[in-house]
Amino acid sequence: MKGFDFEEQRIKKEILKLGAKRVLLQMPQGLKPQATAIAKIVETCGAVAVISADPCYGACDIVLCEAEGLGVDLIVHFGHAKMVRQSRIPTLYVETRANVSVDAAVIQALPLLNGYGRVGLATSVQHLEMLKQVKQILTDLGKTVLIGNAGQLEYAGQVIGCNYSNAKTVADQVDAFLFIGGGIFHALGIALGTSKPTIIADPYDNRAYSITDQAQRLLKQRFASIQEAVNAKNLGILVGLKPGQKHLERALWVKVLAEKNGREAFILAGRELTPETLLEFPNIDAFVNTACPRISLDTPGKFQKPILTVNEFMVICGEDSWENMLKKGLFEN
Amino acid sequence: MKGFDFEEQRIKKEILKLGAKRVLLQMPQGLKPQATAIAKIVETCGAVAVISADPCYGACDIVLCEAEGLGVDLIVHFGHAKMVRQSRIPTLYVETRANVSVDAAVIQALPLLNGYGRVGLATSVQHLEMLKQVKQILTDLGKTVLIGNAGQLEYAGQVIGCNYSNAKTVADQVDAFLFIGGGIFHALGIALGTSKPTIIADPYDNRAYSITDQAQRLLKQRFASIQEAVNAKNLGILVGLKPGQKHLERALWVKVLAEKNGREAFILAGRELTPETLLEFPNIDAFVNTACPRISLDTPGKFQKPILTVNEFMVICGEDSWENMLKKGLFEN
Repeated sequence: MKGFDFEEQRIKKEILKLGAKRVLLQMPQGLKPQATAIAKIVETCGAVAVISADPCYGACDIVLCEAEGLGVDLIVHFGHAKMVRQSRIPTLYVETRANVSVDAAVIQALPLLNGYGRVGLATSVQHLEMLKQVKQILTDLGKTVLIGNAGQLEYAGQVIGCNYSNAKTVADQVDAFLFIGGGIFHALGIALGTSKPTIIADPYDNRAYSITDQAQRLLKQRFASIQEAVNAKNLGILVGLKPGQKHLERALWVKVLAEKNGREAFILAGRELTPETLLEFPNIDAFVNTACPRISLDTPGKFQKPILTVNEFMVICGEDSWENMLKKGLFEN
Repeated sequence: MKGFDFEEQRIKKEILKLGAKRVLLQMPQGLKPQATAIAKIVETCGAVAVISADPCYGACDIVLCEAEGLGVDLIVHFGHAKMVRQSRIPTLYVETRANVSVDAAVIQALPLLNGYGRVGLATSVQHLEMLKQVKQILTDLGKTVLIGNAGQLEYAGQVIGCNYSNAKTVADQVDAFLFIGGGIFHALGIALGTSKPTIIADPYDNRAYSITDQAQRLLKQRFASIQEAVNAKNLGILVGLKPGQKHLERALWVKVLAEKNGREAFILAGRELTPETLLEFPNIDAFVNTACPRISLDTPGKFQKPILTVNEFMVICGEDSWENMLKKGLFEN
């Protein structure tokens, strides 16, 4: 299969090692068109392949309950590095490293990095292999390059949708970040999490661009959301039901804080927290989100009511200032 | 709360009886706006209320995994009668009987029942109380009234989205069915499951109308779907992940049948099987659905590929005829 390494041999080996008879394949949307080809490989090992058809946005979203309900003896999860520690079902993570070259994109990025002597590097799991090479290119040009490792994720330099700790741990020592990968999702997270200029080098389109202005616009939208939520009387505290998004104790803590602050608060738990599902609660004035922080950050216009991160809600309650929160980052990690 | 009986006293009593500390409230979309008011009632008993924000289409959809993951000690499920037998989490079913009068709607239905001497009655759980009264009205007018009980559901005369066994058990003895309730969903199921003229008496709008023509149109669409799927090379066999929709063994049986029939077949399991999720599998030519049979029946136009019931797929494989399948009904029950 082109573009990504699906590690077919490793999958076969694991099935045979475990003697697995029923294997659940889970992958994010972009990889799902490959699912039937992988199912065939599973079947050559004498196992039944079940493909998870539900959306999957990260390793937080591992299909544990579903696998137990289907009597599965191996989960193969594609596209993300391990995140949730669990021993309920044997799980193989296939990180689908990208088979593309990053050189052309980095060359495009060089003019955008002008004036930044100290550069932080970060990437999603698919492009970890490229970090060393990009570091070499930039070092050869006289830049100081830092790759952070806060110890929370599987790899140094890695970022995931909700965790930018590796970037944050070197943020004070760099002038800007260079993110290796496609799309704006992770780079926007770096810019929001670190408040540093952030450049994307996209090895799929062989182009580079800055995400800094977009992050600034998003911060203005966040500030407007906070203003809109200041007078909210009834709050919905959102709890994610995916294994790596479930923070009920945190939500209960937010509820107590909200009530001390003179508001009513209700705990709403969901697997997919969408604009449509939240429309069903018309008497809620604003939501505070303890599930995936990206639910509302990337698409604030789609939700009819403000959806705040816990850090943003602290600003409303007078427990923190907007400026100080920006220093900590919109996200918790 | 107006319109429906939420049985607040029974909920309180159950919480106190179990000494429940964490209560998960689950209800279908139409009832969700009442969720915060019920949460407050739960809190007066000293328990934490968690509201399930995910869609809920039936008692098949009971939030067991979610409740376990949240450490819940009582589920209160609204709007449906018990369906899934389970002993994992204590569950209280609040069937939310409707506080409306059916008389005016039945009077509207009388001209539509002209010429039908033997009438079958059926309803959704909200209106079970009304069956006796409607039977009396029709009997007084000289009609023979039958209310079926096949023993598969909680109540005689009850229908649910996927199970019309109570109607089917008396179908041979009646000329037409009268369904008591709002919307076309259940009545359409009766018409498709029994091939009998079906009239709706809607106690919310105080009106009555026939669903027979709509059922006929839908049958034509189903026939067209079957024709479209005849040459499908790659089949996706859909498995539902909701507790009452999970039929993996059946799906595996369909897969064997499909392969014997010269096709390739892949098992796809999902919680919410939507047009969007199925778009992710572009090399699948048609789907066979072992999950909720209503997924595709009610909105065939929204899906880009044919989605057949298992009975429909049997027709394609030459294991059954279209005419015979219509006698059995599109659904299994």
